[in-house]
Amino acid sequence: MHLEDLTSAEFAAAVKKDPVVILPVGAVEAHGPHLPLSADFLQPMAVAEAVAAKTGALIAPPIHYGVCGTTKPYPGSITPGFDSFRAYMRDILADFRRNGVRHVLVLSGHAGREHMAALRLAAQEVVAATDLEVVLLSDYDIIYGSKLVPKGDGHAGTVETSRVMRLRPDLVKALPKKGASRLPKYTITKDPTTLWPGLTGNPRRANVALAKRLDAIVVREVVKLVQGMQRPR
Amino acid sequence: MHLEDLTSAEFAAAVKKDPVVILPVGAVEAHGPHLPLSADFLQPMAVAEAVAAKTGALIAPPIHYGVCGTTKPYPGSITPGFDSFRAYMRDILADFRRNGVRHVLVLSGHAGREHMAALRLAAQEVVAATDLEVVLLSDYDIIYGSKLVPKGDGHAGTVETSRVMRLRPDLVKALPKKGASRLPKYTITKDPTTLWPGLTGNPRRANVALAKRLDAIVVREVVKLVQGMQRPR
Amino acid sequence: MHLEDLTSAEFAAAVKKDPVVILPVGAVEAHGPHLPLSADFLQPMAVAEAVAAKTGALIAPPIHYGVCGTTKPYPGSITPGFDSFRAYMRDILADFRRNGVRHVLVLSGHAGREHMAALRLAAQEVVAATDLEVVLLSDYDIIYGSKLVPKGDGHAGTVETSRVMRLRPDLVKALPKKGASRLPKYTITKDPTTLWPGLTGNPRRANVALAKRLDAIVVREVVKLVQGMQRPR
Amino acid sequence: MHLEDLTSAEFAAAVKKDPVVILPVGAVEAHGPHLPLSADFLQPMAVAEAVAAKTGALIAPPIHYGVCGTTKPYPGSITPGFDSFRAYMRDILADFRRNGVRHVLVLSGHAGREHMAALRLAAQEVVAATDLEVVLLSDYDIIYGSKLVPKGDGHAGTVETSRVMRLRPDLVKALPKKGASRLPKYTITKDPTTLWPGLTGNPRRANVALAKRLDAIVVREVVKLVQGMQRPR
Amino acid sequence: MHLEDLTSAEFAAAVKKDPVVILPVGAVEAHGPHLPLSADFLQPMAVAEAVAAKTGALIAPPIHYGVCGTTKPYPGSITPGFDSFRAYMRDILADFRRNGVRHVLVLSGHAGREHMAALRLAAQEVVAATDLEVVLLSDYDIIYGSKLVPKGDGHAGTVETSRVMRLRPDLVKALPKKGASRLPKYTITKDPTTLWPGLTGNPRRANVALAKRLDAIVVREVVKLVQGMQRPR
Amino acid sequence: MHLEDLTSAEFAAAVKKDPVVILPVGAVEAHGPHLPLSADFLQPMAVAEAVAAKTGALIAPPIHYGVCGTTKPYPGSITPGFDSFRAYMRDILADFRRNGVRHVLVLSGHAGREHMAALRLAAQEVVAATDLEVVLLSDYDIIYGSKLVPKGDGHAGTVETSRVMRLRPDLVKALPKKGASRLPKYTITKDPTTLWPGLTGNPRRANVALAKRLDAIVVREVVKLVQGMQRPR
Repeated sequence: MHLEDLTSAEFAAAVKKDPVVILPVGAVEAHGPHLPLSADFLQPMAVAEAVAAKTGALIAPPIHYGVCGTTKPYPGSITPGFDSFRAYMRDILADFRRNGVRHVLVLSGHAGREHMAALRLAAQEVVAATDLEVVLLSDYDIIYGSKLVPKGDGHAGTVETSRVMRLRPDLVKALPKKGASRLPKYTITKDPTTLWPGLTGNPRRANVALAKRLDAIVVREVVKLVQGMQRPR
Repeated sequence: MHLEDLTSAEFAAAVKKDPVVILPVGAVEAHGPHLPLSADFLQPMAVAEAVAAKTGALIAPPIHYGVCGTTKPYPGSITPGFDSFRAYMRDILADFRRNGVRHVLVLSGHAGREHMAALRLAAQEVVAATDLEVVLLSDYDIIYGSKLVPKGDGHAGTVETSRVMRLRPDLVKALPKKGASRLPKYTITKDPTTLWPGLTGNPRRANVALAKRLDAIVVREVVKLVQGMQRPR
Repeated sequence: MHLEDLTSAEFAAAVKKDPVVILPVGAVEAHGPHLPLSADFLQPMAVAEAVAAKTGALIAPPIHYGVCGTTKPYPGSITPGFDSFRAYMRDILADFRRNGVRHVLVLSGHAGREHMAALRLAAQEVVAATDLEVVLLSDYDIIYGSKLVPKGDGHAGTVETSRVMRLRPDLVKALPKKGASRLPKYTITKDPTTLWPGLTGNPRRANVALAKRLDAIVVREVVKLVQGMQRPR
Repeated sequence: MHLEDLTSAEFAAAVKKDPVVILPVGAVEAHGPHLPLSADFLQPMAVAEAVAAKTGALIAPPIHYGVCGTTKPYPGSITPGFDSFRAYMRDILADFRRNGVRHVLVLSGHAGREHMAALRLAAQEVVAATDLEVVLLSDYDIIYGSKLVPKGDGHAGTVETSRVMRLRPDLVKALPKKGASRLPKYTITKDPTTLWPGLTGNPRRANVALAKRLDAIVVREVVKLVQGMQRPR
Repeated sequence: MHLEDLTSAEFAAAVKKDPVVILPVGAVEAHGPHLPLSADFLQPMAVAEAVAAKTGALIAPPIHYGVCGTTKPYPGSITPGFDSFRAYMRDILADFRRNGVRHVLVLSGHAGREHMAALRLAAQEVVAATDLEVVLLSDYDIIYGSKLVPKGDGHAGTVETSRVMRLRPDLVKALPKKGASRLPKYTITKDPTTLWPGLTGNPRRANVALAKRLDAIVVREVVKLVQGMQRPR
Repeated sequence: MHLEDLTSAEFAAAVKKDPVVILPVGAVEAHGPHLPLSADFLQPMAVAEAVAAKTGALIAPPIHYGVCGTTKPYPGSITPGFDSFRAYMRDILADFRRNGVRHVLVLSGHAGREHMAALRLAAQEVVAATDLEVVLLSDYDIIYGSKLVPKGDGHAGTVETSRVMRLRPDLVKALPKKGASRLPKYTITKDPTTLWPGLTGNPRRANVALAKRLDAIVVREVVKLVQGMQRPR
């Protein structure tokens, strides 16, 4: 299931079967006072494992460091720049194709605007130059389409706290009260720290039951995406 | 011990104690017919954990994809380019400093020439611009100084097979016979595949006892390096 | 009102009053079979003029060529790359600041994802390095928040056709029937031309009355943004 | 005549006739105390329109911001850097070719050394890689070959003042006395402001009759260039 | 006289005297059928030595490979690209300043447009960022101002042949008949080889007496430039 | 023997014979208190000439400025950056191939880690893209394999002093006492000057006889390398 457990020969054999490779992408990012810096890594990795178990997709070694935007000034957000992340991801995607892989699903736990733009540009460059098929999404692209999400919930809020609680309850600390952003809508932010407490939504409403319901939705949708990639073209 | 298990506030508190951060760097790389693609990740991660346990150093989220040079044409070597890897690593090192970290030990399981050059340039750029202290080495820099290493042993040979055997015996497959490179010494390689079997040394001499002795040496030396960084300047 | 009508001395005098500069950004882009390539330029320029008339803001010389994404394969989409556009815009924003300007509102008629990401990155870079205040939006950011917009309306659809009709009825040709995208949601597009007719929505429902109502909303909101920038900090 | 007035389908039809596209390039640049910042845009745009009327060439949307060199420290010179301008222009030229255009005449009102070098490098890169024909000139390349130009006349001097006077007399303010540069010939300039008043030549000798005579020469020459491009190869 | 003959300590002592450093720049470039590829190196090196002898300026190690433009397709033109040459020269100029040198005269034997633009941009970047004084010229900037030059003379013509004859008569081969360019004036050249014989002017009129007269002029002018740089500021 | 002495036609004829081109690369670098800044240029140039005399190889114009690493803070080390040097060298190597040359031996007198990495990356890029054969070495790669080298000898030590003594005794100044580096092994150096006297080894043991013996070895090995390149493939 994990691509890096294979030997070179096993990998070559696996590639002959035209597999879908799931590439989990996280971020080392401040997630309020209560969630671990690994929150955005834990979530897609768990989804990737559930999806791989159901579809036979291979899981590629993950990318831990993604691009933090608004959270950059909050302690523990260790972020590469937009350009280096984009180039690194482009090279890795291109090298999967060079190795014979034709289908990569990039699953990002982090959904920041710059981060997703960098991933999209990286993928577009490889897709334009080769026949690699890339499906790119954050699991939050699916989640935020669900009516189960409380209105205005966001970064380190009810949903994210619930999901980390489910995966690593030991890493969730005292739940803070709810927070919201007062950042002006179209202004390019210089310093968000006085206008945003670093979380959006109400962590105290978090519960494992919600996480399970949402994770079921996410896994179901990502399974469908993988199955779409597995169909002969 | 693992930095990404911390919350933002815990990280901020940890940084105040001026910690040494160990950043494990691997490569997704063909390692003969018998070792997993993750060989270069497994080794430094195990060393990092042993060293952190003895020194209190923090382990940063690892980098899985490093630069493969000569092994690039062998299946399963998924490699970023020199430039994107260097830029990505530079940005991450710089961002540790921006977050208040002053001591990073980069421990690479992969010791390829381009890979190490990229890491060195990345570190030099940050060291020149800030007061970050960077110690950079491959555990093989220590190992190849030891008389326990069979003459001519190298990539996926006796030592590396022994070390992976110790860590993940389940991932080590049928041991191939010994191999050696016939690549001309100073010629820039265009295609190594007819001149090198993808391993250097004799995997069949691998044994866990050797791994234990070498790992003890490596851990002892890296502990010393970390302790040197922990001393007040 | 138009910055480029000023002499050097008049510009220097204007800058002393700490003005807001509106920078209109368009795209040379295919807009279905019925709208001119200049659609995305005409719209923000008209808004800029209306807003400048009400606020005394200065209008900077416009940028005609923005980044076309999905529309790139449709004839007449003349597009710079993401990187050159971003760098060019960054340099221009930085040079406004070098010239003493402290408030720039970038108003883009084009709302494509890569285009807006490039503008945002350009602005972020200058905002991070200087005290320039940048407000960045597409007029469609405002429009798509309005209930006047028919459901599923988009590129070259009811709203955009209405707005161009209002501004340059002579450039609007025979209205095509409605169109919609069948592009799969998360897949990086290689060739959209068989899955999208180049317009989204129903151009035949276009009418100048709708344009007037929406333009009034846009102008009102942008006037507010400019006034927010004119307030002493 | 103006390419951006066309719809996508009209553009595709026009391209089938193998047209010459004139791309007007200006600069937002200080032009002494008396001429508008748009001087270098107004001039080539007027020439382009006259030439298009005589030849059927298409006029592309103009580029307003070019590279200011020596004038950079004078208020109102809003300049991109050499590299971003060059890359942006290269991308636009390349995208005309991708759209089927095979002949582009780049007409720059600004004739600064760096600016012209950037345009030339941009064009060379596309010409080397494709079969695009590019003719590149400043209208001042023609003008300075004429004996009608007073000796030593230059930036914002007799000729340029005359031409702007002809086009936009409302934008020409009180004519300053003559100026000249005392910049040492081969020294790389650090700060020109004490050695050059920002204009070269005598604006008070400006007259519309001179402008008409020179413009006739320029238009005649550019028409010839366009006709040379229209000949079947 | 030659900077690279000095030891580190001798160099440090020399720098304390605030010397002018002359940096000779050549090109490895086809010069008709009769002149050596080193023509553009031999000429400025000889001037540099004559000037150094008269002024006490230090001669820096030369740059052999400059940017060939139109001559690129002619055998023996070994040329770096514009960007790498510019960056290399910028770094070298900046590093002279880092070493304490405050006055560099760059003397280029090659006068190609891209080559000189690259040198100028390199110098501008360092001049803008530091207090380095850079005087930049080709000896042909002086020569072409002289009435001794036959009309229409240029690359590998009467003057250049004369000067190489003076310096290295052994390297001058059978003199070809005169040549001229029929390249259209403003068209970006794709392939010059059918329109230009690789030389401009009449090599058969070359004579050492002409070279001596022109060299005297060049040396006199460059001596003046060096003396201007030696004056305390 | 020297490529730049040839005319364009002579060069074209020489290339038809499929020659090996030797490209000497130096560095302008502090070499202790006693050796000239040109030390790393003198050595490979002398080897190149000896090898060319024995093999008929052509000597390309040399590169004087290479990348100084640890020596950078010592007076007289004039160094381009890693990136510009690499790009410049890549372009030059690529342009030899464009000119028909198929075999280049890059011989560097300087053996610094960054310098050699830059050369290797430059060569790899051209080798990967073309059929150019590149052999790349420092003469010190051969020398340090010899038992004639005193233990611990290095930069500006016994061997290097001997070799420069042999070539340019006039440029060797009072021999300093022996020196050694106390730089910590894996730490990225910020400032070496207090930990290293700028030389490694004992210059006072230098003697011309040693130089002769080592040079004979170097020439013999490089001759072999050239002959290997001259064999038909």
